[in-house]
Amino acid sequence: MRIEVTQEKLSKALNIVSRVATGRVALPVLNNVLIKVNEKKVTFTTTNLDMAVVDYLPVSKSDEGVITVPARLLADFVSNLPKGEVIEISNDDTRITIKAEKYSSIINGTQADDFPELPEINEKEAVIFEVGMDDFKNSVNQVIIASSNDLTRPALTGVYFNTIDKELAIAATDGYRLAEKVLVEKVESEVSAIVPTATLQEVMRSISDDVEKIEISFSEDLVRFRLGEVEIISKLIDGSFPDYRKLFPNDNNIEAKLPKSELSRVTKLAALFAKEVGGSIICETRKPNIFSIRSVANEFGENNSEIETSIEEEGRVNLNSRFLIDALNALEEDEIIFSFSDKISPVLLKNAKSNKYTHIIMPLNS
Amino acid sequence: MRIEVTQEKLSKALNIVSRVATGRVALPVLNNVLIKVNEKKVTFTTTNLDMAVVDYLPVSKSDEGVITVPARLLADFVSNLPKGEVIEISNDDTRITIKAEKYSSIINGTQADDFPELPEINEKEAVIFEVGMDDFKNSVNQVIIASSNDLTRPALTGVYFNTIDKELAIAATDGYRLAEKVLVEKVESEVSAIVPTATLQEVMRSISDDVEKIEISFSEDLVRFRLGEVEIISKLIDGSFPDYRKLFPNDNNIEAKLPKSELSRVTKLAALFAKEVGGSIICETRKPNIFSIRSVANEFGENNSEIETSIEEEGRVNLNSRFLIDALNALEEDEIIFSFSDKISPVLLKNAKSNKYTHIIMPLNS
Repeated sequence: MRIEVTQEKLSKALNIVSRVATGRVALPVLNNVLIKVNEKKVTFTTTNLDMAVVDYLPVSKSDEGVITVPARLLADFVSNLPKGEVIEISNDDTRITIKAEKYSSIINGTQADDFPELPEINEKEAVIFEVGMDDFKNSVNQVIIASSNDLTRPALTGVYFNTIDKELAIAATDGYRLAEKVLVEKVESEVSAIVPTATLQEVMRSISDDVEKIEISFSEDLVRFRLGEVEIISKLIDGSFPDYRKLFPNDNNIEAKLPKSELSRVTKLAALFAKEVGGSIICETRKPNIFSIRSVANEFGENNSEIETSIEEEGRVNLNSRFLIDALNALEEDEIIFSFSDKISPVLLKNAKSNKYTHIIMPLNS
Repeated sequence: MRIEVTQEKLSKALNIVSRVATGRVALPVLNNVLIKVNEKKVTFTTTNLDMAVVDYLPVSKSDEGVITVPARLLADFVSNLPKGEVIEISNDDTRITIKAEKYSSIINGTQADDFPELPEINEKEAVIFEVGMDDFKNSVNQVIIASSNDLTRPALTGVYFNTIDKELAIAATDGYRLAEKVLVEKVESEVSAIVPTATLQEVMRSISDDVEKIEISFSEDLVRFRLGEVEIISKLIDGSFPDYRKLFPNDNNIEAKLPKSELSRVTKLAALFAKEVGGSIICETRKPNIFSIRSVANEFGENNSEIETSIEEEGRVNLNSRFLIDALNALEEDEIIFSFSDKISPVLLKNAKSNKYTHIIMPLNS
């Protein structure tokens, strides 16, 4: 094997794949990147057994070959070489030699046989969606915040991709709040699949500015994200996601249209006083024109802030301030709608105009 | 007590003092800031018993008074209020009321009697130095990296301020390396005092762009730093600092003039391979013109880089790569001098031109 490639390209590819190769002592080869060269193309692959990341890199000169070497060491070495340098990598059975003009290194590795076999999407049966990169990025960010870390409820540790009424929506919930975004408005195929949050985070980190579209393929228990020269293949989560649209409240009669930045500010102020009471803050509407947020008086003191807006129904609900701040960060528009019906039913948060993003938060006991 | 002050000024003052007030459960009042108002001036004070931070703030309207309240809560509250807002703070015995146009809060505190008494510099006996802020900042950064965390050798956990030959120098060492900088070139007074690293770090964090000079006063076992409206008063470390100038090598006959950025790069490359061997790398001079840095061959592989420069004596020395990287980061000039005499004597690093900064590193066994 022999390849020649510029420092920038090599460094970018290695940085993307090396993140997944992280110190599993039980199977040391998972710390390695599989380097495979054929026909002027080099493939870098890493895996943690749940997901694999592959980066395809066209190279100017190459001889065929295959080997695995420690991913982080190689990535760090290349990223410290000067930009613009042409780097040559060659190998024998168990090690590679990296040369640039004034630098040379030998990195010990292992034969490619030790590397685990990678799952592959069944291309014939795959359901494929293509999404604009900005839409994808923004939507995943809006939804992923509501996913759970609770490994005892695996279905909630992912983001649910599902088609409803010819739309592709993504949703996540941790049982206390729920976020949904319509990702694609008209689709023909159908899907119902839970993608691990960790996989989506890896996809998000692998996005580079020059890639405009992402291709998402589902087949059986696998999903593949293709973005430019990067492919991320992951197992889906085996489980059933709650029938969440039933939870959307449709009779919230108390409603306030609010400036998002101001609501966010007063929520943060109240949150400072709410640490002792589990982050609980009191949201209240008062006729004719007051929306107030305050903290429950406690050891630290108390806090009250008011926002003027027209109010038609009075009411009060207690929320976890952190959840409200998360939701406000996820909403896109400057004006948002805060609606609820009583102290125990879900609060609904939406943009004032667009209808594609829905965020609901369960109230706290008051 | 009643004061009126803008959000920006109040927030800046509170952020500076609140860092020192950090969660000592044994004496909860140390989490508080002492607020004292007299004659259109408000003083904010915090202390952790080793050091105290005081910020003086001129205010437009004020009535006298004194109280303590949780520092972090007050600082966070004020920093979340809108810039430009005028904030009014008033108090009764054990709590303050903070009001801005649309926001109001009550923060519970304690009477000022609970707050520990603060040490004071004896102005008559004090030895005082004045240093330009940029000089001070750069010099402390250059020296503090060599100070120790080892609490069993308290004298090494500080920076030594000492006058030698009518110069004020600062120095630090952890026993493996030593850094010295001449801070002021002509001084009349004399001092020999070890300032805790933690105090200096606090001083560094309190520097704001608009302050051009710092006043440093020593009296008995105290030091006071005055920068603008901020004063930091700290105990000195009781102990004797090594007679370090004796350690400066003056007969290093192997010398290389090197481009700093390139030396830094090749050191980082070698360091990647040196994790297994305690960071040890091999520095070598070879006639007529090679300075090389390489890692000891080991499980990971091996690495060799060369820099061209004129060499008159050949030699080899093993260094801790992290110490070398730290030293290079601290040197100011693009060209530096790396000199040594054998495998066991200290390596000396200096700027190629200026003579004010000295950094020595003890070799590792080879």
